Amino acid sequence: MAFSFEIDKTAEGGGRRGRLTLPHGVVETPVFMPVGTAASVKAVPQDVLEEIGAGGKGAQIILANTYHLYLRPGHELAGRMGGVHRFMSWERPMLTDSGGFQVFSLSGLRKVTPEGVEFRSHLDGSKHFFSPEHSMDVQIALGADIAMVFDECVEHPASYERTRESMGLTHAWARRSKDHFENHKERVPWFEALGGDTQRLFGIVQGGMYVDLRKESAERLVEMDLPGYAIGGLAVGEPREVTREMIARTLEFLPKDKPRYVMGVGYPDEIEEYAKMGVDMMDCVLPTRAGRHGLLFTSTGRLNIKKLEYAEDQRPIDAVCECMVCKRYTRAYLRHLYASGEPLAGTLNSVHNLHFYLATMERIRAELAGVSGKAVS
Amino acid sequence: MAFSFEIDKTAEGGGRRGRLTLPHGVVETPVFMPVGTAASVKAVPQDVLEEIGAGGKGAQIILANTYHLYLRPGHELAGRMGGVHRFMSWERPMLTDSGGFQVFSLSGLRKVTPEGVEFRSHLDGSKHFFSPEHSMDVQIALGADIAMVFDECVEHPASYERTRESMGLTHAWARRSKDHFENHKERVPWFEALGGDTQRLFGIVQGGMYVDLRKESAERLVEMDLPGYAIGGLAVGEPREVTREMIARTLEFLPKDKPRYVMGVGYPDEIEEYAKMGVDMMDCVLPTRAGRHGLLFTSTGRLNIKKLEYAEDQRPIDAVCECMVCKRYTRAYLRHLYASGEPLAGTLNSVHNLHFYLATMERIRAELAGVSGKAVS
Repeated sequence: MAFSFEIDKTAEGGGRRGRLTLPHGVVETPVFMPVGTAASVKAVPQDVLEEIGAGGKGAQIILANTYHLYLRPGHELAGRMGGVHRFMSWERPMLTDSGGFQVFSLSGLRKVTPEGVEFRSHLDGSKHFFSPEHSMDVQIALGADIAMVFDECVEHPASYERTRESMGLTHAWARRSKDHFENHKERVPWFEALGGDTQRLFGIVQGGMYVDLRKESAERLVEMDLPGYAIGGLAVGEPREVTREMIARTLEFLPKDKPRYVMGVGYPDEIEEYAKMGVDMMDCVLPTRAGRHGLLFTSTGRLNIKKLEYAEDQRPIDAVCECMVCKRYTRAYLRHLYASGEPLAGTLNSVHNLHFYLATMERIRAELAGVSGKAVS
Repeated sequence: MAFSFEIDKTAEGGGRRGRLTLPHGVVETPVFMPVGTAASVKAVPQDVLEEIGAGGKGAQIILANTYHLYLRPGHELAGRMGGVHRFMSWERPMLTDSGGFQVFSLSGLRKVTPEGVEFRSHLDGSKHFFSPEHSMDVQIALGADIAMVFDECVEHPASYERTRESMGLTHAWARRSKDHFENHKERVPWFEALGGDTQRLFGIVQGGMYVDLRKESAERLVEMDLPGYAIGGLAVGEPREVTREMIARTLEFLPKDKPRYVMGVGYPDEIEEYAKMGVDMMDCVLPTRAGRHGLLFTSTGRLNIKKLEYAEDQRPIDAVCECMVCKRYTRAYLRHLYASGEPLAGTLNSVHNLHFYLATMERIRAELAGVSGKAVS
């Protein structure tokens, strides 16, 4: 399946209804990608993941974390198993991050040089080194449909100078990522099985909270002519208006005919807002992580299932939700599971939240398809 | 649905192929009951529980623990929710233990008098008191199809004197349990919904590891004319030959036309052995607890999934197993999930083990049905 990105309609606000064709399938955009950190969307079996969301369509694409999979089970092992798709029995599209963000989250455990990043494992303190080239090798072995360039994600807040310097490193690393990826992409484990098709490498725009740096970063990356672009370094603690402004001001400088991806966001109203601004892809741990902590998203707002007020509440989480959890279980039961530390709580809460996110995206796609927008071929 | 127990065939060894009709459905015997401690078979969603086992039939009956549900969410709350069936959305048969065994497991936290047992919650140290009457009230509110008399389970090893004394208490408590149950059984939450049908109360034979006490205990309980009898106080640390002898010697004194239930056993070969000796019902936490600890049961023996030797093993857990886990996932992936502490490990391992137990029972039932045994009406 050759790579392509088609846009059917673009709405006034910039939102696009499109279709991303990847080696492992077609993804309707805008899309939300559940996060399967260590080759598992936490607490959710793959067959359930294939069935949640509006109309039982399931998740179209999931994200897996390069850093975590590099440490366990190891990218070489995953490669020998045929890549992460086959390893975890997920035959639909997949994206891996570059490992950069996670490595940079290991504050105190890392050391950055122009060559790459030395860091210590959060698991056992062992020393490791990631360069752009190594990130590419790891991601090629993992074998997701989409790989990401290795970038530096600057801390927040960061000065203009610090941000510009970091951005320069990101650009140099993007170039090195691309060069290495182009020379080795035929090594993806499923290269022959899929008739010589391979992964695609997306760029990542940095530039912190400075509009001119965001513009510069977008322009430098667009010069590299990558098949898609992410906006990184957001949702790192800045106010939400700043996140939105950075997204809006960066989108201006990204090619309209390529997929645009905002990494690591967000709450349901945020993903809706960004999708309607023209973001095609998003991912976030929030639906699963919040679910494991008892925070549930509904059509009428958030609900903290641990509260005593739900102890005898015989209603479903959300009266209008069609997920398997809302069809079967009461708030009273879900509160009991959570309060009792039952492992089923994590599963059911995550399933509901993921369904809510995917159903939200389905609604947004329908809205964008119905909007009389200009056709972009 | 009126209560009945029918036996189609009895094999040479004593094993019986039968059918137990309960208010919430019919149970093919011999049967293994998965344990849903706190109204959840740990880590396994109810829809999966309805589909595991040979032929996708699912679990026919589950056990819930009175002690745990009494503490959380509380039997009165469960009663107001319509009983545990409705609370957890499990419309098939269910059995509750009496709380006795669990209370007696709280060594150091309990004090036994002829009136009952004072104990401290393992959760918060709060003081509670269980008498036979209270156990009945709790079990009636929980509303399982089968309730159990409140008994004392003697520690192992225990002297003859100590065991006989404890057994006497068990018999007195069984009488008090029955009296209270008979006077209050119409209070079960689904009494009207099921047309005036109600729970049934089973007795529990004690007597430790002394054959003459087992005989005496069986005789005393049979005099109470209860609809079914359990053999309690086994699998408490004694050698397996002793367990088997106690079961064999107790079965002799239990009525052949009533269901016989051995509590809290065992490994797959044990449940097979006991079923073939004429035990109709068994329950055990082993398939789920072992699963959460990475121990898997297969047609060729046990497998400890955490072992390095499975790291790249692309085979299913068990080549001849038809469960959803074996059909989809490799040992390599399951080892990774376990080693990474992924919550999905507990779910998938438990599903496989439960399937193995239920499929084992299905095979035994078929064997017993095929045996040319004498018909017992």
